[in-house]
Amino acid sequence: MPAITIKPERLLADLHRLRAFGAYKTGVHRPTYSPDDMAARRWLVARMQEAGLSARMDGIGNIIGQNTAARRRLLVGSHSDTQNHAGWLDGAMGVIYGLEIARAFLEAGTPGGAGVDAAVFADEEAHFASFLGSRSAIGMLDEAEIDSARNLTTGETLRQALAGAGLAGLERRTIDPSRYLGYLEAHIEQGDDLEARGFNLGIVTSIVGIHQYRLRFSGVSNHAGTTRMAIRRDAGAALVSFAYAVNERFRQLAAERTVWTVGNIRLAPGQVSIIPNHAEMLLQVRDDDPAVLGRMRAALEHLVAETRQGGPCAVEFEILAESEPHQMSRHFQDALGSAASRMAPGQWQRMPSGAGHDAQIIARVMPAAMLFIPSIGGISHHVDEDSSEADIVLGCQVLADACRLLLEETRQDN
Amino acid sequence: MPAITIKPERLLADLHRLRAFGAYKTGVHRPTYSPDDMAARRWLVARMQEAGLSARMDGIGNIIGQNTAARRRLLVGSHSDTQNHAGWLDGAMGVIYGLEIARAFLEAGTPGGAGVDAAVFADEEAHFASFLGSRSAIGMLDEAEIDSARNLTTGETLRQALAGAGLAGLERRTIDPSRYLGYLEAHIEQGDDLEARGFNLGIVTSIVGIHQYRLRFSGVSNHAGTTRMAIRRDAGAALVSFAYAVNERFRQLAAERTVWTVGNIRLAPGQVSIIPNHAEMLLQVRDDDPAVLGRMRAALEHLVAETRQGGPCAVEFEILAESEPHQMSRHFQDALGSAASRMAPGQWQRMPSGAGHDAQIIARVMPAAMLFIPSIGGISHHVDEDSSEADIVLGCQVLADACRLLLEETRQDN
Repeated sequence: MPAITIKPERLLADLHRLRAFGAYKTGVHRPTYSPDDMAARRWLVARMQEAGLSARMDGIGNIIGQNTAARRRLLVGSHSDTQNHAGWLDGAMGVIYGLEIARAFLEAGTPGGAGVDAAVFADEEAHFASFLGSRSAIGMLDEAEIDSARNLTTGETLRQALAGAGLAGLERRTIDPSRYLGYLEAHIEQGDDLEARGFNLGIVTSIVGIHQYRLRFSGVSNHAGTTRMAIRRDAGAALVSFAYAVNERFRQLAAERTVWTVGNIRLAPGQVSIIPNHAEMLLQVRDDDPAVLGRMRAALEHLVAETRQGGPCAVEFEILAESEPHQMSRHFQDALGSAASRMAPGQWQRMPSGAGHDAQIIARVMPAAMLFIPSIGGISHHVDEDSSEADIVLGCQVLADACRLLLEETRQDN
Repeated sequence: MPAITIKPERLLADLHRLRAFGAYKTGVHRPTYSPDDMAARRWLVARMQEAGLSARMDGIGNIIGQNTAARRRLLVGSHSDTQNHAGWLDGAMGVIYGLEIARAFLEAGTPGGAGVDAAVFADEEAHFASFLGSRSAIGMLDEAEIDSARNLTTGETLRQALAGAGLAGLERRTIDPSRYLGYLEAHIEQGDDLEARGFNLGIVTSIVGIHQYRLRFSGVSNHAGTTRMAIRRDAGAALVSFAYAVNERFRQLAAERTVWTVGNIRLAPGQVSIIPNHAEMLLQVRDDDPAVLGRMRAALEHLVAETRQGGPCAVEFEILAESEPHQMSRHFQDALGSAASRMAPGQWQRMPSGAGHDAQIIARVMPAAMLFIPSIGGISHHVDEDSSEADIVLGCQVLADACRLLLEETRQDN
């Protein structure tokens, strides 16, 4: 098979065009199904069609751009939605890699029937639910979940959002695993490990599991001046004590790469002179070892029980999401390693992913692997998120070459 | 002087009419200068005029209803704005007492030239600034403060709000202290002390001082999965540790009646998968001893310094408001005690006020005192706030009688 040649200028131009949809400061605000997100998706369909792919959007907003001439195929892509007021590369880069590599195979004449389909998933960032699009694509999303999901920020129902985006009534399509050798996804690292160690590429060995919890504290709101401390049932004070205890306990239980975050806290009614009667916090824990995740969960449940017994506020403990750690295909990792060694010898490492990705979902139905490029300063989910153009181009070349290697191996007509 | 006779049915009817402006569940939502608040103020002006008082609203929303026949006068009133989604009696009861007692003196023929003016102040609840209306009324509010003040909930500027309420350009009027013997204000207790001890009336000895602070923590927002705990600068985690330390330290330093409250906490960007880069909390401390308030302040400043030294987040410490404790007029307290002993013997006590009131502002220019009635269950600043009709009527009768006693003492034409 001839080398598959991507076009760096076109890759970067498309990436910058995608950045313009929902541009916010130096980053992007493109929450799933927002007008900017839908405009970006429609542009991606058009761009795929211009390249000669057969592309359309389905009822959850996923897009698969198919190389209809191919007989042996890989699926390459990522998601095009962003977190609120976040960075320009997260998801977007992997999407444009998929488009560019699919184009490069078409331009090479779909050699020996080898081709790449480009994938764009919806709502990986979980505005409505974790991995909404990729789960739909493998048949892991039922209508009842769609009925009940709401936007975490705005409270809008998913049904309303789909209708507003013009997707209501459109069929949701699942991927046929027999159509593909497997799935590849590129992404910015979103941490500082590659940069700190001076590597340009990371080949992902596993994706961490993520446990996500909501804790709600209920007390009694009352006047902040006239209610003695002894008789208060202050939900905010209960939350502060709980969150402090979580941090203390988790520090003792954490493994080397365990991370946990209280991403939001809300008190109600939130007035300076009123004792809060409701308080709520979002807590997330990540590790690539199920045993570590299990002992953090047990510690959390223990603290909930202690708070309930100690009073004076009630506590509700809700599991919002839990994904277990996922191993990436060893065989696909090796193909990525071969391509990286050829194009950037000594400049890559294997590493776990601290972030969740659609690849962990698609890995349930076919082999999957991921390639990382460095994030400048380790910054991600922030408008300052960025990577060097050299790394962006190198990553796409290595991913394209790995696709060639994997498709070549399976060639039977030579 | 004849007895001054208030009309219980009229008092209660007016109180329920006022409740209808901004009715919310069983409570009221009537933030300062909102359409409901302005409608209520216009109704109060009309009701005063119907009673024969000369009444108009000034450029800050204050209303003084004057008995133009009186030669010796007391000022009686409170504020008609409410906290957000709060109770129906806070402020409103004292306002309608003022109206009813002013009416009763008019109906008694302004005997011997003794009369009561009714006062309605604006924004005692500090949507824009603490005691905005009563400070304006004694000349303690300058234009520069009006230029800079914003609504704590909505961020609207005070200038915009005044324009929206139709008050822009209207003169702000100050009270002439030489016109009055003093000021009397009735209020619900907002705590459970009267109820717990079985009393129907409380005569206020002093009003607590209130210190109000905003703490802002600044860190760096980053991906909650890929950023190692060791390098995080998590503003939310810094806030939780700080708030916990405040609670621990304040518990050691508090006097018997000291109270403190974290009424609100906000994290930004507030996403489950993003490390917060900003976190903010509102903290309020109340006591009637300046020395206690001083040592709480010193402890807070010490914790701020510790947090700054310990890192990894920056802390800003802002004093939002500080009022010192205020003593009520001993002479006026005695008049209230005489009236209470006559109408509810053995059913009253003297007590400090844990809440701030316009009376502490007006006390700067003339003698002032306050009368409390019980709050059912001690509930206040909440839609469940309520008091018995018997207590509401009794309180108004006692306040009217105290007015009669104070005005009678100074009679020179008999």
